[in-house]
Amino acid sequence: MREAIKLADDGMRSGRGGPFGCVIVRKGEIISRGNNRVTSTNDPTAHAEVTAIREACTALKTFQLDDCALYTSCEPCPMCLSAIYWARIPQVFYGNTRGDAAAIGFDDDFIYQQIPLAPDQRTVAMKPFLRDESLVSFQEWAKKSDKMRY
Amino acid sequence: MREAIKLADDGMRSGRGGPFGCVIVRKGEIISRGNNRVTSTNDPTAHAEVTAIREACTALKTFQLDDCALYTSCEPCPMCLSAIYWARIPQVFYGNTRGDAAAIGFDDDFIYQQIPLAPDQRTVAMKPFLRDESLVSFQEWAKKSDKMRY
Repeated sequence: MREAIKLADDGMRSGRGGPFGCVIVRKGEIISRGNNRVTSTNDPTAHAEVTAIREACTALKTFQLDDCALYTSCEPCPMCLSAIYWARIPQVFYGNTRGDAAAIGFDDDFIYQQIPLAPDQRTVAMKPFLRDESLVSFQEWAKKSDKMRY
Repeated sequence: MREAIKLADDGMRSGRGGPFGCVIVRKGEIISRGNNRVTSTNDPTAHAEVTAIREACTALKTFQLDDCALYTSCEPCPMCLSAIYWARIPQVFYGNTRGDAAAIGFDDDFIYQQIPLAPDQRTVAMKPFLRDESLVSFQEWAKKSDKMRY
């Protein structure tokens, strides 16, 4: 966790992005590091956890990190938490909370409130459109014999 | 939306990943395209929407897409929906629903159920750790005069 905090400090001080750092550990060894680099790379998805997950997967040549633990200097936002689920990481340690992040101006807590709402209740306008035509791809996937699940 | 569906089909048939496609539109023009490439690039965050958001931001040299609309062949999962919030995209059109995705084996709906739970109630084990030390970075950010917000 102290390495994650150091990454947060380094990223903030060097102007990469917000004060967030993350490491991913496997069998007692750090396999990837990330800090926030949203503003320096023009990538709103480049949070510390997403960055560390992408780098760990590249290093291990896998899209599943089911034998890893993630240490992050702040409770993951819903984007990063969902990425943790998609990567099958079973264990997370976090320092600051979403409330601490809200107190210094970040939207993590607001997005946590938006996610459970019905699509038509959110501040982002969401409209269903052409579901019948979209379903055709899903039917083809269901029948596909050589698909790789994730 | 038909372009997003076509991207879903192309990605699935060429073995890039699951049957999901997305386009981002600005002033009536498509500025980026994405399809799912999780399994082909070993990147669990490479969903169609995240891919399209990253490419749109690169193309426009910004981390905010507040004058864009996003068309996706399936209701965004919580990772992609959060990325939409972080990118400030105000409008989303979607084809298939999270229920349609669950019916062909995807975890979108499961993750939607996990996000609103308290951290200690989730299937991912989440533990607070060293909050006091982590807070120091946040205090430094709060005082930082030259920070770039996002």
